[in-house]
Amino acid sequence: MANHTVAAFDLELKELQRTIAAMGGIAETMQSDAIDALAKQDVRLAQKIIAADPELDRLQRDVEEKAILTIARRQPMAVDLRDVIATIRIANDLERVGDLVKNIAKRILAMDGQFPPPTLLASIGRMSLMALNQFKSVIDAYTQRDPQAALAVWQRDGDIDNLYTSLFRELLTYMMEDPRNISFCTHLLFAAKNVERIGDHATNIAETVYYLVTGESLAVDRPRGDENELSAQAGE
Amino acid sequence: MANHTVAAFDLELKELQRTIAAMGGIAETMQSDAIDALAKQDVRLAQKIIAADPELDRLQRDVEEKAILTIARRQPMAVDLRDVIATIRIANDLERVGDLVKNIAKRILAMDGQFPPPTLLASIGRMSLMALNQFKSVIDAYTQRDPQAALAVWQRDGDIDNLYTSLFRELLTYMMEDPRNISFCTHLLFAAKNVERIGDHATNIAETVYYLVTGESLAVDRPRGDENELSAQAGE
Repeated sequence: MANHTVAAFDLELKELQRTIAAMGGIAETMQSDAIDALAKQDVRLAQKIIAADPELDRLQRDVEEKAILTIARRQPMAVDLRDVIATIRIANDLERVGDLVKNIAKRILAMDGQFPPPTLLASIGRMSLMALNQFKSVIDAYTQRDPQAALAVWQRDGDIDNLYTSLFRELLTYMMEDPRNISFCTHLLFAAKNVERIGDHATNIAETVYYLVTGESLAVDRPRGDENELSAQAGE
Repeated sequence: MANHTVAAFDLELKELQRTIAAMGGIAETMQSDAIDALAKQDVRLAQKIIAADPELDRLQRDVEEKAILTIARRQPMAVDLRDVIATIRIANDLERVGDLVKNIAKRILAMDGQFPPPTLLASIGRMSLMALNQFKSVIDAYTQRDPQAALAVWQRDGDIDNLYTSLFRELLTYMMEDPRNISFCTHLLFAAKNVERIGDHATNIAETVYYLVTGESLAVDRPRGDENELSAQAGE
């Protein structure tokens, strides 16, 4: 690229990266609010989470549009091209994380009036916190361009899957104990599934960061915690 | 674009569109197999579905890679640029449809030995067929560049949502009747949710087709069937 093109490219890339950082911040707050809202069955906080989601959608479209214009105008190569593509992919994952958290918030609204037992809420809270930590670590790995940190996130995904499988069994037990538990347990089941999927998106982002920095793909076989008998029952 | 660039662009776009058509064919077969496999609780067919999914993943990466190279090399504008972006978006939706169908197949494996009542299987079969028809219509709308057909798909999404909500209640009733139903009902609950999400992807593709042909976005407010009391209970 000519010098002025390089400068223009750098400016455009920086703006894309700033938008990703903003999206990461919004998605992190939504997740942390969802942990509180679940624990306290806080309907107002759930509504705040739902209201935050459209901004993530808007920013994702913004990143996609600008990234494609940058590719067309500046024709970046090698790591520069990977850098722009990474913003498209990560924005996509962040937008989907937002949808999943929004859905958890809607389930809090739907459970209104059926306060689940504290032990169940504690289990799902633990799982949500693990997913949030994975999420924060992978956003840091992106900001720092740290492939080792990304790899560590990728390797830890199995832990969330295992926690999901055990929570799945815990919820089934509650449902079988008393039919009155069934309604809120199905909501918690979907909420837990969404948390597990947030973990998957953190892992996707880890793959993107690793590829961006090293130019190499992580092995296709992800170390998922779902190859055992229990997860087969959880339908993973 | 210069004439030789136009010719090169047309060739590349045609190849991208052929790959989308191939992906659409695979995803359609997977869905139609899943309907049979669910109805007959056919474990071997479920395994065939699971085995088909990696090819969709591979083709999606292929489309993304080639589309971005085309944008960088040919710098298409207006409808040409929208055409290339559409292939990236649609490939993304098709890959996710594949994941959802694969997950339904895994749940058939997980339900092994607990044959659900025929009426329940009929309900989820009806819903799956509706989603498959939406899917086929929107792939046709893409092939034909038909914005009206895309709009019709988009407007019908609420029907699947309504069927999901009623199936959700039906499953809850079964679970409450007999604790022995709970395990397979949770699998069917997730399967039904996945079918509903397949419908959402058909709607996404409809939005992409509409935008591709007309250059205009469909209104942000999708006519979802989830604005009522029942769906609030289904956590939509």
